[in-house]
Amino acid sequence: MGITRRKAMTIAGVGVAGIAGAAAGATAVLAADSEPTVPVSAASGAVPFHGDHQAGIVTPAQDRLHFVAFDVVTKDRDRLVSMLQDWTAAAARMTQGQDAGTIGAVNGIPEAPPDDTGEALDLPPAGLTLTIGFGPTLFRDASGVDRFGIAAKRPAALEELPKFPADALQPEISGGDLCVQACANDPQVAVHAIRNLARIGMGVVSVRWSQLGFGRTSSTSRDQVTPRNLFGFKDGTANLKAEDTALLDEHLWARAADGASWMDGGSYLVARKIRMTIETWDRTSLGEQEEIVGRAKGSGAPLGHQNEFDELDFTIKGPEGEPAIADVAHVKLAHHSQNSGARILRRGYNFVDGSDGLGRLNAGLFFISFQRDAHKQFVPIQLNLARHDVMNEYIRHVSSALFACPPGVKDGGDYWGRELFS
Amino acid sequence: MGITRRKAMTIAGVGVAGIAGAAAGATAVLAADSEPTVPVSAASGAVPFHGDHQAGIVTPAQDRLHFVAFDVVTKDRDRLVSMLQDWTAAAARMTQGQDAGTIGAVNGIPEAPPDDTGEALDLPPAGLTLTIGFGPTLFRDASGVDRFGIAAKRPAALEELPKFPADALQPEISGGDLCVQACANDPQVAVHAIRNLARIGMGVVSVRWSQLGFGRTSSTSRDQVTPRNLFGFKDGTANLKAEDTALLDEHLWARAADGASWMDGGSYLVARKIRMTIETWDRTSLGEQEEIVGRAKGSGAPLGHQNEFDELDFTIKGPEGEPAIADVAHVKLAHHSQNSGARILRRGYNFVDGSDGLGRLNAGLFFISFQRDAHKQFVPIQLNLARHDVMNEYIRHVSSALFACPPGVKDGGDYWGRELFS
Ligand code: HEM
Ligand code: HEM
Repeated sequence: MGITRRKAMTIAGVGVAGIAGAAAGATAVLAADSEPTVPVSAASGAVPFHGDHQAGIVTPAQDRLHFVAFDVVTKDRDRLVSMLQDWTAAAARMTQGQDAGTIGAVNGIPEAPPDDTGEALDLPPAGLTLTIGFGPTLFRDASGVDRFGIAAKRPAALEELPKFPADALQPEISGGDLCVQACANDPQVAVHAIRNLARIGMGVVSVRWSQLGFGRTSSTSRDQVTPRNLFGFKDGTANLKAEDTALLDEHLWARAADGASWMDGGSYLVARKIRMTIETWDRTSLGEQEEIVGRAKGSGAPLGHQNEFDELDFTIKGPEGEPAIADVAHVKLAHHSQNSGARILRRGYNFVDGSDGLGRLNAGLFFISFQRDAHKQFVPIQLNLARHDVMNEYIRHVSSALFACPPGVKDGGDYWGRELFS
Repeated sequence: MGITRRKAMTIAGVGVAGIAGAAAGATAVLAADSEPTVPVSAASGAVPFHGDHQAGIVTPAQDRLHFVAFDVVTKDRDRLVSMLQDWTAAAARMTQGQDAGTIGAVNGIPEAPPDDTGEALDLPPAGLTLTIGFGPTLFRDASGVDRFGIAAKRPAALEELPKFPADALQPEISGGDLCVQACANDPQVAVHAIRNLARIGMGVVSVRWSQLGFGRTSSTSRDQVTPRNLFGFKDGTANLKAEDTALLDEHLWARAADGASWMDGGSYLVARKIRMTIETWDRTSLGEQEEIVGRAKGSGAPLGHQNEFDELDFTIKGPEGEPAIADVAHVKLAHHSQNSGARILRRGYNFVDGSDGLGRLNAGLFFISFQRDAHKQFVPIQLNLARHDVMNEYIRHVSSALFACPPGVKDGGDYWGRELFS
């Protein structure tokens, strides 16, 4: 008999109160909710898995990230589909604070490996969300081969991203056939989930690259305090938020009418690992840092404005009559008014991957954005930034990936990718 | 004027309650205490910096780690000493939830860089401890040169560690002239502290290697729940704990009589980065996993025993008359009864550093132990494990370092290394 994670706990996340004390700071428990879009902010509760949209997009950004990109190593479409079904079942369990289940393990045999790797055995759900995405190469490989008979279903929005000026991409940490974004308020819970999916997928997928993020750099709900990135600035202030439902419909959720019916209610994920040379930034004056960003470092207010959440007004002048927010300030270059109305939902994380061999920390921002069409939203904004942003002197994009995240799993017989593979 | 971190907060960690809501799960505030050895367990409060011993050793193990090893790049003893004084002042401030201070930055000039990098501006102390250590190479470099006139003060206990069977050490992530162990319940706070020390030390030290640990793998107090390592087992059960004061005096704290008066009340730190091939482990049966460790995976109880904290009894027999705990079980090989009474205080962390390029997660245990003399404690235990532990099929030691951690900073004019450099 294998070990199971919290067998006694109920699916909806109730019943964890008794063991919540086991995790530092574990306090609140989320009520069950059929929609993953507006869960209560809580450190240890469960976020519903089923819904119209996948959780982990407008879910209030959790504190920790484990992101993984997989290569599919089988040529067998049936094995791939059956793994996606197994993954869905395991994800439905793990996000509710249960073990990975008997899926993918030989069971009932004493000599069999445990059903679950066990390191999250005593931990609450911790707000875990698992969000899957399909990469361009899943549809057609580099030589144009239709690997799983789904090439005709590849949306135009899933064309590979263009190369941007000054990109310094490392192919071994870019791309991927599949991705899973695991977010949780306890990193052990996020790592545990990815590890069990990798275990269940053995022989079908293999880990291409993976990234840990230690602190969120964005808010996706008005209930959240804006966190800070490694430049020391509040990040996520002017983000698309869960409460902006009309804007989300316009900018976040793909529609069948966009071209691919299997993506109706889904969203496109862009991941960019951005190395920040924080040592150089730390030698820059506060005034210059603020000018580059276009916001005050302490309060997060736009320059020339009063409060963090004031709407940007580019007509406000500084003491010498110059625009308070410079034309090349990051927030202006990235603003929808400068990019044909394009908006994105940012959901990135700070990272430190040891040191760089040159006496510096290997640190930066693991940028993640969700949007209805990356080519119409992320791409124009990033082109504008890549061309004009003074911040470029302090950053370097070292990896890039694009994934189509299908809509939410409805329930019961539904699974990740069902409409794509049927 | 630069930005300061929580200027309004008092040194002893009171007054954070008002902003505690800013950090997920931030709840309790620690009372001021002149001894760092028995702080109340709390996620967001401050651990006292001053005391007979450095904090971060018997302090109840915090959830997150940022460990850094530095090379000293100056030949100037005065600059090194003055940096150690600056570091001490900054550490005293940051551990109490303040900014790094005006130390190491040109101040009062508007064009000057901010005094603090800012990313922890809104965060509580989060139990931050900063623990310094001096490596063998600080005393004498590889060619035997006495770099800073302290070679005569190098204790025998600070001889380089021997090579162990099957060591696969990478020199670029091993060793170092100085180390700082930053532990906190919020990784942003730990990273912030290391980064500011690196900033203050610019031109004197350079980052040699650094390691993030995302989850503690040990308990150092009887008040703590035992966490799990990435093999899914409870880790830290039979550890030396803060409450075992007599054992700590015998096994943890160095004494002047041991040979070096500047180490009176200090301790020796061993760091070993141990890669775990978790994919192979996950294919091993539960029974075999438990036999290798010598404890039950679920409860953590020694095999043949009832409860997690039962004393190991190697005479207890299994169903077929064989010893319940095998002679080559990890807990037996590592037990003091098998190693001339040697005990250590383990304070390690789980890590995941992306993937390994071979389709697997690059994951493992960043092992840290403190002891009165590593050569008399860590070395015999590790020799025994390296020779006989079946667990070796699933692990590989990839880095190694040894540091002498001086006693605590007493107050006022005292600083890290004062007795060593005077
Ligand atoms: C290391 C790299 C980056 C850093 C440090 C950074 C930092 C910031 C900061 C501090 C803000 C202001 C606070 C806020 O409104 O969230 C901001 C805003 C924003 N950033 Fe970035 N950013 C980075 C990269 C990017 C990239 C790659 C994109 C997209 C291509 C992007 C798009 C945006 C957008 C759309 C806004 C909001 C602008 C507005 O409407 O006010 N950023 N960023
Ligand atoms: C990845 C490598 C390692 C893993 C997964 C591991 C795991 C464990 C586990 C699960 C326990 C039982 C629970 C406990 O009492 O804490 C344990 C005990 C122990 N381990 Fe390890 N360990 C590792 C490496 C080491 C190393 C390198 C040393 C020292 C050289 C060490 C020394 C000890 C000691 C002293 C005990 C307590 C034994 C007793 O007195 O009962 N371990 N370890």
